[in-house]
Amino acid sequence: MQQFNHNEHPHRRYNPLLDEWILVSPHRAKRPWQGQRETLPEDNRPAHDANCYLCAGNTRANGEKNPDYSDCYVFENDFSALLSTEVNFESKEQSLFQLKPERGINKVVCFSPKHNLTLPEMEVEAIEKVVQTWKAQYLELGSHDFINYVQIFENKGSVMGCSNPHPHGQIWAQSSLPTQIEKTQKNLRAYYEKNKTSLLKDYLEQELKQQERLVLENEHFVVLVPFWATWPYETMIISKRHFSNIIAMTQEETKAFAEIIKDITVKYDNLFETSFPYSSGIHQAPTDRVAHPEWHFHMHFYPPLLRSATVKKFMVGYEMLGEAQRDIAPEQSAKILRDLPNQHYKTKTT
Amino acid sequence: MQQFNHNEHPHRRYNPLLDEWILVSPHRAKRPWQGQRETLPEDNRPAHDANCYLCAGNTRANGEKNPDYSDCYVFENDFSALLSTEVNFESKEQSLFQLKPERGINKVVCFSPKHNLTLPEMEVEAIEKVVQTWKAQYLELGSHDFINYVQIFENKGSVMGCSNPHPHGQIWAQSSLPTQIEKTQKNLRAYYEKNKTSLLKDYLEQELKQQERLVLENEHFVVLVPFWATWPYETMIISKRHFSNIIAMTQEETKAFAEIIKDITVKYDNLFETSFPYSSGIHQAPTDRVAHPEWHFHMHFYPPLLRSATVKKFMVGYEMLGEAQRDIAPEQSAKILRDLPNQHYKTKTT
Ligand SMILES: O=P(O)(O)O[C@H]1O[C@H](CO)[C@@H](O)[C@H](O)[C@H]1O
Ligand SMILES: O=P(O)(O)O[C@H]1O[C@H](CO)[C@@H](O)[C@H](O)[C@H]1O
Repeated sequence: MQQFNHNEHPHRRYNPLLDEWILVSPHRAKRPWQGQRETLPEDNRPAHDANCYLCAGNTRANGEKNPDYSDCYVFENDFSALLSTEVNFESKEQSLFQLKPERGINKVVCFSPKHNLTLPEMEVEAIEKVVQTWKAQYLELGSHDFINYVQIFENKGSVMGCSNPHPHGQIWAQSSLPTQIEKTQKNLRAYYEKNKTSLLKDYLEQELKQQERLVLENEHFVVLVPFWATWPYETMIISKRHFSNIIAMTQEETKAFAEIIKDITVKYDNLFETSFPYSSGIHQAPTDRVAHPEWHFHMHFYPPLLRSATVKKFMVGYEMLGEAQRDIAPEQSAKILRDLPNQHYKTKTT
Repeated sequence: MQQFNHNEHPHRRYNPLLDEWILVSPHRAKRPWQGQRETLPEDNRPAHDANCYLCAGNTRANGEKNPDYSDCYVFENDFSALLSTEVNFESKEQSLFQLKPERGINKVVCFSPKHNLTLPEMEVEAIEKVVQTWKAQYLELGSHDFINYVQIFENKGSVMGCSNPHPHGQIWAQSSLPTQIEKTQKNLRAYYEKNKTSLLKDYLEQELKQQERLVLENEHFVVLVPFWATWPYETMIISKRHFSNIIAMTQEETKAFAEIIKDITVKYDNLFETSFPYSSGIHQAPTDRVAHPEWHFHMHFYPPLLRSATVKKFMVGYEMLGEAQRDIAPEQSAKILRDLPNQHYKTKTT
């Protein structure tokens, strides 16, 4: 009988944050691909686009005019999925038909007035301003009585449903803990109660010893491909210090966080020499006025590309009905990302 | 204060099969869409394509030649994600780094030798043969010692990662219960133990009374948009009789199942007058040699399209990091599907 090799043999791995397993088929990247190709993003945008509803000075769909902003600009989403209005509701209490109204606030965060930038091409100082904006928003939104969780995220690239290439992210703040947060919290809490320590702190310690899934490290943060990553080049930024939300970040940590966001997004762009699409977002403690020592600040990057700038991984039939599945071992992805240059391919001097 | 209205106000609904909540933002379909458009599938395929590796008589990548099949043809996937070989493995038992080898068998099921057909355009008798093939495969694959679950599914359309338009589905059979099956089973079982009856039987009874989420009904099956559907036009086929797997189907039920598969896929094609993409699959009892009275045979359809033949719903940032979110009330989707003609748009006589 052959000896098991995780770079060759199909296996399952356990995600302790979600209490779920994923299927790894490392040999499968070899199959030929005759399916759908994505269109490459255009790469000749002007610094200001008169038709962009996020550019400074332009008028949005609802008639409001953006100010002449110079770094970050935040406004309430004109097409919010959540609304802050309270409605009258009588619950009918039926176990198979459970429904409840949900209140919330959706915001758009423009990262820069420059239409033709994205995070990897911005200066670290400018990214620091984005992080500071996230802090202020977490604080402000979280201070509302009816807001118990603040989800900060970015959809980058049209393949990730982003309808405007202007550098921006979103914040959805709401009354309930979203499904993924509730699950993560449950698992972090169980670990914390059992071990009196942070699951991600213990995990990070092991990863720093094992090295093979590390991508980047600075004084305060580490980027790694999680042992249980589902997307081909999925990564996670974990803070070295155990703190539960973005407000707890020191000034130094804030800078280091901005730096590592730049570094990982530069690596991503360099992977296929394209503006690399992803959805990213911060997972942190709810704003429900309860102590959350179990939470450990981290940021997920879920990029869809698998083989090239135009061929993505499809999470479809088996993945939707069975379980998440990946075609390359996380250790291989980590090595590929680690070995990439740290300088953006567009600024390469040859 | 306004009275809550589920066609207007943001709310969350509970999925009792997965024990998860989803966010419904029914007012949100109104926002304009400037994002990615999918390419329309080509609709002039020949009945036999010399370059198709699924057509009868053609040679596949691995050098094997397909027989001159006349209805269904099943073969082992040339690029299987799961392998049946046993490997030698010593578990290291670390709570944050859990991994185990997984064995399985992947098959491809050609639904018809005709390259230019899809399920909605096939005769009911031909679909019945597909169902019989599924039965035989469930039985055969499930009889292996090391196979405890058999996932039957179809990815239809390039937007769902399908790389060949020849009508076909797949079967992934494996040792472990996949994540989604394990969760579903846990919830079905808890309900069964508490109420001594099938969750889906009770649910279906209510839905038949309420009517508003029904799409189709015949003597033995119902198609409805689940109360907790996440995809815009997601549906579920539920058997009226409570049985746990495809083998338990009577001859009459088999025919009724084939009929309702045709009927729902015809409605889907008629929705945007296009070959409607989806991932579909059967959820049923594991083949682990244990009685499963909690399982109730059903089939999910997860179609990505939202607004038109070229604009899909993106399950991205918020959905990946927070929770699944939909932009139209399930009751509205059900009405739209219900009101569509039952005859395929291509065969319309005007
Ligand atoms: O097996 P196929 O059709 O080549 O591949 C397709 O279905 C599989 C099962 O859902 C997925 O893992 C792949 O990402 C998808 O492209
Ligand atoms: O809000 P946007 O950018 O218009 O829309 C995008 O992000 C949202 C949040 O992840 C999703 O619900 C939408 O499906 C997606 O197209």
